[in-house]
Amino acid sequence: MARSWLDIPPSSPFSLANIPFGIISTKSNSTHRPAIAIGDYALDLSIFASQGGFSRLPAIESHLSVFSQTTLNDFAALGRAIHRETRTYIQKILQKDGPFPSILRDNAQLREHVLIPLSSIQNHLPMSIGDYTDFYVGLNHAFNVGVLFRGPDNALQPNYKHLPVGYHGRASSVVISGTPIRRPHGQIILDPAATPKVPTYSACGKLDIELELAAFLCKPNHLGYPIPIDDAAEHIFGLVLMNDWSARDVQAWEYVPLGPFTSKNFGTTISPWIVLMDALEPFRSTSRVGDAEHRENLLPYLREQRHDTVYDINFRIDIQTPASSEKVLFSTGNARDLLFSFPQLVAHHTVTGCNMNTGDLLASGTISGAEPGTLGSFLEATKSGKEPVTLANGEKRRFLEDGDTITITGTAGKEGEYVGFGECTGVILPAL
Amino acid sequence: MARSWLDIPPSSPFSLANIPFGIISTKSNSTHRPAIAIGDYALDLSIFASQGGFSRLPAIESHLSVFSQTTLNDFAALGRAIHRETRTYIQKILQKDGPFPSILRDNAQLREHVLIPLSSIQNHLPMSIGDYTDFYVGLNHAFNVGVLFRGPDNALQPNYKHLPVGYHGRASSVVISGTPIRRPHGQIILDPAATPKVPTYSACGKLDIELELAAFLCKPNHLGYPIPIDDAAEHIFGLVLMNDWSARDVQAWEYVPLGPFTSKNFGTTISPWIVLMDALEPFRSTSRVGDAEHRENLLPYLREQRHDTVYDINFRIDIQTPASSEKVLFSTGNARDLLFSFPQLVAHHTVTGCNMNTGDLLASGTISGAEPGTLGSFLEATKSGKEPVTLANGEKRRFLEDGDTITITGTAGKEGEYVGFGECTGVILPAL
Repeated sequence: MARSWLDIPPSSPFSLANIPFGIISTKSNSTHRPAIAIGDYALDLSIFASQGGFSRLPAIESHLSVFSQTTLNDFAALGRAIHRETRTYIQKILQKDGPFPSILRDNAQLREHVLIPLSSIQNHLPMSIGDYTDFYVGLNHAFNVGVLFRGPDNALQPNYKHLPVGYHGRASSVVISGTPIRRPHGQIILDPAATPKVPTYSACGKLDIELELAAFLCKPNHLGYPIPIDDAAEHIFGLVLMNDWSARDVQAWEYVPLGPFTSKNFGTTISPWIVLMDALEPFRSTSRVGDAEHRENLLPYLREQRHDTVYDINFRIDIQTPASSEKVLFSTGNARDLLFSFPQLVAHHTVTGCNMNTGDLLASGTISGAEPGTLGSFLEATKSGKEPVTLANGEKRRFLEDGDTITITGTAGKEGEYVGFGECTGVILPAL
Repeated sequence: MARSWLDIPPSSPFSLANIPFGIISTKSNSTHRPAIAIGDYALDLSIFASQGGFSRLPAIESHLSVFSQTTLNDFAALGRAIHRETRTYIQKILQKDGPFPSILRDNAQLREHVLIPLSSIQNHLPMSIGDYTDFYVGLNHAFNVGVLFRGPDNALQPNYKHLPVGYHGRASSVVISGTPIRRPHGQIILDPAATPKVPTYSACGKLDIELELAAFLCKPNHLGYPIPIDDAAEHIFGLVLMNDWSARDVQAWEYVPLGPFTSKNFGTTISPWIVLMDALEPFRSTSRVGDAEHRENLLPYLREQRHDTVYDINFRIDIQTPASSEKVLFSTGNARDLLFSFPQLVAHHTVTGCNMNTGDLLASGTISGAEPGTLGSFLEATKSGKEPVTLANGEKRRFLEDGDTITITGTAGKEGEYVGFGECTGVILPAL
């Protein structure tokens, strides 16, 4: 792996091997603008482009206006070949003995303008999101939740392994990492044993997290024309981490027969930097919850040519409580616990002809492992609050309490070459 | 009721009492632009505004740019007071003995430019839709479907009367009336008796309609801050008709446990002209599926000060088959068969803090009556295809066949003063 002339801490998720894209602003310039993350810095692509930074990349020359937009939609829409060339070019610019030292390495004035410490920037939603869809393809999670609701014999519904179960989510309430989440009120059954059940308007008492991975799309299709599975990867721009905050007590009452609604639409947090699919290419892997039998039973429109179509990305979920000065581990996880790949999600989403747009967001569903300590929600870890977990700081939790901060991180690769997502974080504010 | 100097057929849904807003283009000018419908004409608001048409309406003078936009979002965002003044002003302009005859009535040149026969225009989506939500508050429909799935004793779920059941829908596939609908393929269980169930990739064999009414929103709220029920009406711009095309065989297999997904996202048709809430004001009515007991059992956040918060709008669904030269009646209906009002839908949608945006679309769910001949879907009319209906032309139908055209109309009021929606229509194209 090449090294950079820039001092990049070996523990940084934003190594030279990564080059994730985001939207930033600064105190001195509130305009939202594209950037990449490298080590402890953001590289401001709007300034970089306007100052001739891309002069040695002919492929992007006629598209430089994408770097003066307030979202990455226009850049994403250029397609994966251009994403690849742009990322590779930026890697060359940052490389220790790269081919174009005069552009940035030896240009102190431009360096001064385009390299901004991450501690000085604010991140914003990287894409204008048209529609957001949440899937449910973390098999262990679906099984664990099914056991809680229906017992182990019928935990997974008959359709579960045949198609990626999913539902349309709320796009307007997708927020960037760092946005506080207000504990919601909603309709809740305080006494589930009462007959008939009578709901109360109450602050959520079972506020939960959901660790997910999510893909931004970069290529549309026409209504009525499904995206074939072999073309689906070309529609995927990159991935982010997601925390799909959930009001479990609201959900339990409202979800029949049409699925979760107000229990999920009060906030969905994503990490700020979109990790491009090319950066994840070395970490392709096989699902560890699917097998050859599962693949062979799939209908042809979901069958992939290769089997290493999920990614070996390690997650951790940390919690910082108001009583504690440091965050402590809640759980770990890995993206290989997904039963379906993102290209399969795209193919299934469009099977009846649904049209996708650049900027659409497709989430995996909660990712849980099969071992203790690898569960992606409190619902599973505490058996819906029945068995509180003891945190490493000695505190107990059934669900989230006011002031709790949840931080999800995700990383692939090894020290010095990490391809990571940064943080997906949010603090719980007390109910109004 | 005042009359117009313009010749308006008494049967027109677009009487002087209506003045609905839409987006049009013409062969000679492909730019999408705002218009209102009056009788057999569209009145082009972009030309009208640019030629001084609003010179006697000071309230709109500083906002005239809203009429040169390609959607109605900016006009809607001006708020209900401005909608009211604008609609009233246009009525005065068109009135037989109105106060400003020189602006249009006596200005042949401007009339020539702004009044375009409806037969010469193309309609487009009137709003840029951020999120689309589909509710399920047509009580008879929910009951009928519940009987089919669970029998009459458990037809309605325990939550049904306590909250407006709803789910997030797909915004990208909302299309304007007239857009053909391609019969989709999807995962379908051809033999429901087989164990285990094995899905087939197949063209939909149970393609259905859903007659709905839908509201466009005109005012946002901040994430975390619910819209109080008494403020909710201020967030509603106007109503359209909707046909929520549904693939029933796909739906039956996919919908557990998270609700309908690919069975609903291949096309949702809306009527082109948004009827403003002020135009519907004279047709306020009480729900005929709710009663005082229902209202009193509601939690306070859903309790309305007045009880006439649904509308007396009559619907009809016509079908034209390929074998027939004329359309025939399939069903009639009325919007009083909704259990909850649109303000209640807004209040509930935001109860946990969900943020709404101008341009969001909220649909009622299928509206069915309690009598034969008043059902809003084939699913109900044919008991999921078990009992075919005989159309007035002698043909039988279990579900839609290729080439069938479905046209929904909706009208309030009486001849000469109709407040109607025009047509919400679509033809079924054969599967690819």
